[in-house]
Amino acid sequence: MRQRHKPWADDFLQENRHIVIPNAKENKNKWKDFFGNEHPIHVEIGTGKGQFIAGMAEQFPHINFIGIEIAKSIIVTAAQKVKDSGMDHVILLNEDAQDLRELFGENEVDCIYLNFSDPWPKNRHEKRRLTFHTFLSQYKEVLVDVGEVVLKTDNKGLFEYSVVSFSQFGMKLEEVNVDLHAEQGSTNIMTEYEEKFSAKGQPIYRCCAKYV
Amino acid sequence: MRQRHKPWADDFLQENRHIVIPNAKENKNKWKDFFGNEHPIHVEIGTGKGQFIAGMAEQFPHINFIGIEIAKSIIVTAAQKVKDSGMDHVILLNEDAQDLRELFGENEVDCIYLNFSDPWPKNRHEKRRLTFHTFLSQYKEVLVDVGEVVLKTDNKGLFEYSVVSFSQFGMKLEEVNVDLHAEQGSTNIMTEYEEKFSAKGQPIYRCCAKYV
Repeated sequence: MRQRHKPWADDFLQENRHIVIPNAKENKNKWKDFFGNEHPIHVEIGTGKGQFIAGMAEQFPHINFIGIEIAKSIIVTAAQKVKDSGMDHVILLNEDAQDLRELFGENEVDCIYLNFSDPWPKNRHEKRRLTFHTFLSQYKEVLVDVGEVVLKTDNKGLFEYSVVSFSQFGMKLEEVNVDLHAEQGSTNIMTEYEEKFSAKGQPIYRCCAKYV
Repeated sequence: MRQRHKPWADDFLQENRHIVIPNAKENKNKWKDFFGNEHPIHVEIGTGKGQFIAGMAEQFPHINFIGIEIAKSIIVTAAQKVKDSGMDHVILLNEDAQDLRELFGENEVDCIYLNFSDPWPKNRHEKRRLTFHTFLSQYKEVLVDVGEVVLKTDNKGLFEYSVVSFSQFGMKLEEVNVDLHAEQGSTNIMTEYEEKFSAKGQPIYRCCAKYV
């Protein structure tokens, strides 16, 4: 996502350390304690402006949500949404999600959402796609045994690649949608990107894969 | 496919017993002998008017093709195409493909094509879909160890169902296309249906799954 310089971002984040958690790596293996309950933990990689994670948190009060977003100037918008909602079962991390094992211990996460991730269409960039097998290995480590990865994208290439990658890694596909908005309406929480793309009539692809 | 009564069909089939093979079940376990070579055997279920199988046979002279079509009034059109082409590595069977094990022995087939199969959209008809697990079990028996199933459809529901069904059965997805014609052109042999649907701008879905 393109970033605008927001000089007030540092101050805002400083004031909202209960929403955008600093030194997140120190909470590795302690997230259940952090939330103070035994609810499942769902993680979104690339939370952007936070519409998805805030919407999900509203819909599922008994799930703890953690949104990870590397761009400081963007995560502030997500943080404002969370702040406005008053919910305390959704937090944000201004971190690089290149290695989730730095942030989460084994079996600490129940579900990972990859929403409209960078498709990295060139073959030579395959390794950067968040469904490349090295990432699937990482996810497996932090996820519980029946943990799942849910991918949503408007990018045909990334979708096709990911379905095959999940399958080749030995994961089982639980659900596949090749035109999400044609099939289900209100139960799907849209990201900001998703709203924009789907308004143009483009199909949104989704799949849910489980480690077995 | 809707069938028109063709009174001359019986005579035509009688005259072309080298193309539409009668008493096909007697060739079970003997198809390699039938073709007189060791080439792989690819089977299409629901061959219709034969454009796909004839086109594939033209493109792959070192594969033996067997097209199965239950409707006599339709298979004659496919038979005419094969006859016109003069090829002898493609034959047709006017049979019900409900149980492939009646037609083929273990490890006798290398690849099965399901082209634009009836989607049976109602949940209560799930068992009739050609990618329901009972069919996947049958295919596994007649296919070689690394045998594959290639599905092509314009039906979103059947595609989504089939990808999940393959995966849940323990097969691995080798390739997935959610808009086949946007991605590859000349190498894809179209069925008659496919030409019609894709001319309307509808995406064609394809996936290739392998038993492991």
